[in-house]
Amino acid sequence: MDFRQIAEIALALGKVFVEHSHAIRANVKGAAFVKTAVVVIDMINDFATGVFKSERAAKIIPNIKKLLEFERKQGIPIIYATDAHLPEVDHEFEVWGPHAVKGSWGAEIIDELKPEKSDFRVFKRKYSAFQGTDLDMLLRELKIDTLILTGVVTDICVQHTAADAFFRGYRVIVPRDCVEAVDAPTQDTAIKFLRKAYGCEITTVDELMKKKWM
Amino acid sequence: MDFRQIAEIALALGKVFVEHSHAIRANVKGAAFVKTAVVVIDMINDFATGVFKSERAAKIIPNIKKLLEFERKQGIPIIYATDAHLPEVDHEFEVWGPHAVKGSWGAEIIDELKPEKSDFRVFKRKYSAFQGTDLDMLLRELKIDTLILTGVVTDICVQHTAADAFFRGYRVIVPRDCVEAVDAPTQDTAIKFLRKAYGCEITTVDELMKKKWM
Amino acid sequence: MDFRQIAEIALALGKVFVEHSHAIRANVKGAAFVKTAVVVIDMINDFATGVFKSERAAKIIPNIKKLLEFERKQGIPIIYATDAHLPEVDHEFEVWGPHAVKGSWGAEIIDELKPEKSDFRVFKRKYSAFQGTDLDMLLRELKIDTLILTGVVTDICVQHTAADAFFRGYRVIVPRDCVEAVDAPTQDTAIKFLRKAYGCEITTVDELMKKKWM
Amino acid sequence: MDFRQIAEIALALGKVFVEHSHAIRANVKGAAFVKTAVVVIDMINDFATGVFKSERAAKIIPNIKKLLEFERKQGIPIIYATDAHLPEVDHEFEVWGPHAVKGSWGAEIIDELKPEKSDFRVFKRKYSAFQGTDLDMLLRELKIDTLILTGVVTDICVQHTAADAFFRGYRVIVPRDCVEAVDAPTQDTAIKFLRKAYGCEITTVDELMKKKWM
Repeated sequence: MDFRQIAEIALALGKVFVEHSHAIRANVKGAAFVKTAVVVIDMINDFATGVFKSERAAKIIPNIKKLLEFERKQGIPIIYATDAHLPEVDHEFEVWGPHAVKGSWGAEIIDELKPEKSDFRVFKRKYSAFQGTDLDMLLRELKIDTLILTGVVTDICVQHTAADAFFRGYRVIVPRDCVEAVDAPTQDTAIKFLRKAYGCEITTVDELMKKKWM
Repeated sequence: MDFRQIAEIALALGKVFVEHSHAIRANVKGAAFVKTAVVVIDMINDFATGVFKSERAAKIIPNIKKLLEFERKQGIPIIYATDAHLPEVDHEFEVWGPHAVKGSWGAEIIDELKPEKSDFRVFKRKYSAFQGTDLDMLLRELKIDTLILTGVVTDICVQHTAADAFFRGYRVIVPRDCVEAVDAPTQDTAIKFLRKAYGCEITTVDELMKKKWM
Repeated sequence: MDFRQIAEIALALGKVFVEHSHAIRANVKGAAFVKTAVVVIDMINDFATGVFKSERAAKIIPNIKKLLEFERKQGIPIIYATDAHLPEVDHEFEVWGPHAVKGSWGAEIIDELKPEKSDFRVFKRKYSAFQGTDLDMLLRELKIDTLILTGVVTDICVQHTAADAFFRGYRVIVPRDCVEAVDAPTQDTAIKFLRKAYGCEITTVDELMKKKWM
Repeated sequence: MDFRQIAEIALALGKVFVEHSHAIRANVKGAAFVKTAVVVIDMINDFATGVFKSERAAKIIPNIKKLLEFERKQGIPIIYATDAHLPEVDHEFEVWGPHAVKGSWGAEIIDELKPEKSDFRVFKRKYSAFQGTDLDMLLRELKIDTLILTGVVTDICVQHTAADAFFRGYRVIVPRDCVEAVDAPTQDTAIKFLRKAYGCEITTVDELMKKKWM
């Protein structure tokens, strides 16, 4: 096949791009071919140093930080999804006790991972970042089809967000060193479950940063 | 039927109350039998004095104010649902042009109707206050089954909120002097449509305040 | 720009196609670049010759028939969304009286528009074909971003389906001779509303069949 | 407190019943105070004797049968939620391979648990019976606030249905001998997770049938 033929195919492809695909047009606007978003789940004070203080959560902070810096440079959208519970209203306190109360210090994102102006925020009241939020709406508007999930805890808020993402047809990638659970067996079981139940691709932050596909 | 028989029925009814109905327990907790909530839609600067400035919107402010003061005293929850659009992301600007940008003055509730601490807030990015928000979740948690809709504009954000409320089984009441549209024929058509399509009860603020049923 | 440069862009574009876009891959599988689906709303016996018998509904049957035959040849998915109400359960009968009871003759698609084996079916219990159905799920799985809405009645089931499509980011096209309402003024008002509120493109079946963009 | 006082309370309570609570009015219509529904998940041929044949699934059939017979007598609604996948469309086959194809023998409810005419059916394409179905709508219409979940498999379709029920504020009861997983450790882990994550009440069919609260 000579260059002329390739060029003709290119023009045909280009026409499809230009005329039909909102998704691709959205991407062309940005610096990169943006189809992927990073979701940072519940990296808030209450889950790091507050009521559910966790050394395991602390361990993943530098990894998430590294990933966010890398992805921001690529023009990949970063979405923070964090608990913001209404006391007296949320049923969840019956299961877990009070935590991450809307407007409180405990519900604030930890200092090490403070969002930048161009990042997005979603306030959630259930485990899944899709429940009662504009996350799905936002992902559609941004023409995202792939999510990189990070944060805590792997078997609760990460897992339920992965479930809802899977139900909605998103491809889900989980860097295992950017999510954590309350102990090692829970983490291992949850990672296996993410792969088995939702077909998540399990990787690491360093592997993820080597890829060119985003 | 003598008092003894009535008492036995009462005991049976009481047992049902105590053991089974979360709804009723929720109500008993409060000062009143709370089953109703008032939703105040888009009473923000951009729809009053800003980009979509409207004398018709201004006209309903005192009526809504009167209703809110009355209902707060009854312990009826007040929920403000207001536009908070993301520029560059929301598709809605293609239809209406820029308005009610998240975090801007235009998206703030007008001074005359400032919420109180115990009121609830829902930020929406579509016409309906149910789309991409925790409104339905909140209403369920509060055991609400009836909504009083107020605000602007009758044929767009009020109507689409009424539609979603109707689909979810809520009873919808619309005091016609607490909602407004861009002109009188649009208002009239929308009021008729609310009654015809969703079975809304159309009333006035004064009629509403006479009722004891809330 | 010479052919070599175009070719290089083509290869880059092609790589994006091949590696990243599920949407495009899905399309490449089919005979055509399928991004569009036709939704046929409530063309059932009860709305044609049954309880809500309508000469106006009868009028659009040949137009829809022509469109479906044309689109099926293009490989465009056809989705029938039809009422299937549960008596004693659905609240809608309080507004409209009994109609389109699940499993009844009245809820069957009219003979003139019988679906083919490759068409899809969605059974709905509310006005909007998105409420309580797998329509959105199906459209995502088929990588659809544009809907052509047809059927009855324009101001109720068509309009509410358009609203939910608009909220979810779908582009909506309405051939005005493939939808109908109870009388001419209602039809005109509804057509205007579809354009104003959801940015629908209003066209005709013949204009639609001239276009190459699907 | 004498009978007169009780009677007065009864009359006050009765007024609340009559005037305000749709839920209670709905119940009063039926033979029992119906607030609870049984959901039977995926008790279809493919999960019993078909592609995912399971002796463990077979084991719970008599227990579910006993429960259904008991609950039908109480007037408790029975809802069958079963997989009905669209081949070529559903993403789920990428994870599990083909199973429970819509309209196939494999997707039919097993003979031992055939539904009765008054039972409800929900066809699902995702793990959770709430995703892309009218289940939530149906439960609201029936004024249900408590679900008894039964069927297979505990860690996938039962668990994801429990999650969505919890998010929507339903109380969830799981008789452990009416649900099963692929092996004993998976079953045990899933049962613990249901209790921990969603506050499910774990019981047995015999305990459940002793209770008077429904």
